[in-house]
Amino acid sequence: MNAQQPLYHELAERMGDLIHKGTFSSGSRLPSVRSMSREHGVSVTTVIEAYGRLEDRGLIEPRARSGYFVSAPKVVNGELPRPARTTRSPVAVKCPDIFAAIVQAVADPGIVPFGTAVPGDGIVPGKRIASLSNAICRRMGSAAYRYSMAPGRLELRTAVARRLLTAGVKATPEDIVTTLGATEALALVLRAMTRPGDVFVVEIPTYFGVLHLLKDLGLKVVEVPMNAQEGIDLDALDEITARLPVKACIVQPSYQNPVGSCMSDASKRRLVELAEARDFTVVEDDLYGELGHTGPRPKALKHFDRHDRVILCGSVSKCLAPGLRVGWVLPGKWTDEVKRLKTIHYPANATVSELVVAEFFKTGGYDRHLRRIGALFARQCAQIREAVLKVFPEGTRVNQPQGGFVLWIEMPPGFDSEVFAAKTLEKGISLMPGSFFSATCRMKHCLRLSCGTACDERALKAVATLGKLAHQIS
Amino acid sequence: MNAQQPLYHELAERMGDLIHKGTFSSGSRLPSVRSMSREHGVSVTTVIEAYGRLEDRGLIEPRARSGYFVSAPKVVNGELPRPARTTRSPVAVKCPDIFAAIVQAVADPGIVPFGTAVPGDGIVPGKRIASLSNAICRRMGSAAYRYSMAPGRLELRTAVARRLLTAGVKATPEDIVTTLGATEALALVLRAMTRPGDVFVVEIPTYFGVLHLLKDLGLKVVEVPMNAQEGIDLDALDEITARLPVKACIVQPSYQNPVGSCMSDASKRRLVELAEARDFTVVEDDLYGELGHTGPRPKALKHFDRHDRVILCGSVSKCLAPGLRVGWVLPGKWTDEVKRLKTIHYPANATVSELVVAEFFKTGGYDRHLRRIGALFARQCAQIREAVLKVFPEGTRVNQPQGGFVLWIEMPPGFDSEVFAAKTLEKGISLMPGSFFSATCRMKHCLRLSCGTACDERALKAVATLGKLAHQIS
Repeated sequence: MNAQQPLYHELAERMGDLIHKGTFSSGSRLPSVRSMSREHGVSVTTVIEAYGRLEDRGLIEPRARSGYFVSAPKVVNGELPRPARTTRSPVAVKCPDIFAAIVQAVADPGIVPFGTAVPGDGIVPGKRIASLSNAICRRMGSAAYRYSMAPGRLELRTAVARRLLTAGVKATPEDIVTTLGATEALALVLRAMTRPGDVFVVEIPTYFGVLHLLKDLGLKVVEVPMNAQEGIDLDALDEITARLPVKACIVQPSYQNPVGSCMSDASKRRLVELAEARDFTVVEDDLYGELGHTGPRPKALKHFDRHDRVILCGSVSKCLAPGLRVGWVLPGKWTDEVKRLKTIHYPANATVSELVVAEFFKTGGYDRHLRRIGALFARQCAQIREAVLKVFPEGTRVNQPQGGFVLWIEMPPGFDSEVFAAKTLEKGISLMPGSFFSATCRMKHCLRLSCGTACDERALKAVATLGKLAHQIS
Repeated sequence: MNAQQPLYHELAERMGDLIHKGTFSSGSRLPSVRSMSREHGVSVTTVIEAYGRLEDRGLIEPRARSGYFVSAPKVVNGELPRPARTTRSPVAVKCPDIFAAIVQAVADPGIVPFGTAVPGDGIVPGKRIASLSNAICRRMGSAAYRYSMAPGRLELRTAVARRLLTAGVKATPEDIVTTLGATEALALVLRAMTRPGDVFVVEIPTYFGVLHLLKDLGLKVVEVPMNAQEGIDLDALDEITARLPVKACIVQPSYQNPVGSCMSDASKRRLVELAEARDFTVVEDDLYGELGHTGPRPKALKHFDRHDRVILCGSVSKCLAPGLRVGWVLPGKWTDEVKRLKTIHYPANATVSELVVAEFFKTGGYDRHLRRIGALFARQCAQIREAVLKVFPEGTRVNQPQGGFVLWIEMPPGFDSEVFAAKTLEKGISLMPGSFFSATCRMKHCLRLSCGTACDERALKAVATLGKLAHQIS
């Protein structure tokens, strides 16, 4: 035990950790003060101090004559960020190259990782994955290390096809090509379907990785605003696709990164009908589709697709384990071209990873796992959101994500989030400037905070530091 | 035991398997007939029949009063394939798209896999890899499944840097970017250093994957002939680079696929000097560099590089396990651009795979492993070569690879290997037509046979079938 820290601090951290990991879930009762004192060999006062500390952090609450209970994530009111405006004409993607420092900070344990949308170790069922992997290697011997060439292992494609039923998507293993994650899926699809100069519609704000891909492929883009609750502005999309020869539109219909919106079924249906009427393709990036904070998994956009208009991409990187490198794509009429490109550029996937994910999907427990981490992310987002609203300058607006684990923050006009991000990185805190999420480098007064890792004292202290710095540069 | 097969057949297969796997290596003594009979509970006659069968296959030989010994791989004389001619002017790459069927046949256990250069399960130390992987997962827990972002795990980059010392290459971990195999390494480097229309020099014949990449990137190529013993024709390269603005040259200096040649140190030095004098870059694909059949590992071309002219790519796919997906590149002055492209297109590698390979390199046994599989591939190549020379039409020429595991076969003029490959695939045997190894679809009268998998009765029977078909279409 660390001699520098008082006992109650240690105990509070330990209990906080168990709450974050879902060992004690929302509404469940904590052990009584007396039994904690016995179990941990500390005084009753120490336990009371520790519980008090957890209460201060909003993690637990006392109920009269019943003891302490884990609080439900508190949703603090506050204004939501406002949509951007549409760009009138297609433009080449501009995006700053300086983000390497922020992305690479993910490997540095000394940096508080608000910058990259990386789920913390706490969501990864490491033991289960290791034991599945071990069983596969023992059963198959050296055959577990053969090439897994495009379209990927049949076991995985079958398991993904079954899994997609929960999103209302009927697919056969033949419809699926497995990839090294959703980014490879997007990269393959974009290369298969485009030529330089084609016009794409993207959301503003949108995941910066997509923008870098589009730039690299020489495509032109039009930005359509995102509403923090409803998703992409369909009226704006209607107007643009009536006016311009749009090749395709890339969207995250379910729990968009960074605004966290989930389109309603009606909106999803309307988007597919629009694609049909105006003859464009929709690339559905479903990376966060399984990460709703509550309730049933939303239908995928692909569910509403009757005429091969929607290309679906997915991955387990955000909801099972980033380092496995397992994703997939349903490339529709571009399936042969996607397979060809994959064979040329990145011919094979990590075989054991593919088999592990197939087993994980098949042998059950995945839905329970998703419920656990959905609740975890809900709590982490709510806590950071509350802390931000407390310490950031007047007029700060923060989204209320319905799924996923990132916060989109609108600062007062004139705020320069690129300067801010450089300053916070000096203080050991990474975050992503809003301009990185726009093909035209707009939304500089916004920023994204990832809440993928545990919301511990260090994280809350980091938010306080952010608040101070934000006041300084406002 | 299979009731259809006589006992001696079973026993011969089992012993042949142990020889193929290196349990009994060249020159080692087999158990006596008497002890075999006792051990396996079969009659002395059965053992004698089994040993006779192995003798017929050239695997073992009797020595007077000493018993049976494992034969050294027999090198049968025969003419070597002849080099092609140089193309005069840079041309766009043409390459047939029909190879998908052959590549995909690798996943079909019903097909004899002469078509793809895939090492058999026998070379993969599956148990060792599984146990390293298990230890890593237990030690690191969920942290073993974090993103491994470009430039890749430091542990692996350090281990690769140490490993490269055996090839005479001094590199630091900072010089190295890890990849998902050599193909990704090549894809990244080519994208980083070229613009459409740039002129590349390639070997003829060369690995078809490189040709597809060059085609996809819109590059122009000039083909320089390969000599089956000396490697690339440096006089021809001299003449071409004097005449044309060559951006770069892609070579496999050590155990080239498909001709199996290894350039001498003097030739390697001359190539680097030429690159210096004529201001072009050399991309060294060192995929087979560790797979020499005997003797010490050849120096890499990169060893002779003093002015950042050589970009080195490598991987463990052919010498440890294809399905791990671990490779690397030393991109020299293009390091930042390679990292940027990797971050955009395929941001992360399979973390456990990277750590397993790092451990394998570090904890020793890798050199012993390489000696074992080098001897194995030597035997497999020699046996298939002998069988081919026996049954193929008069005038067939076969290379004598010094490393790697593919045979390059020159058939009589006018032979159409594309027709041949289609016919053999119908009979359940894959092979690669020679035209696939040329940017101009030449060398149609040649073909490549991979000897990566065990040279068992099924393989020898397949060669006999190939011989018959070859006579029919000649």
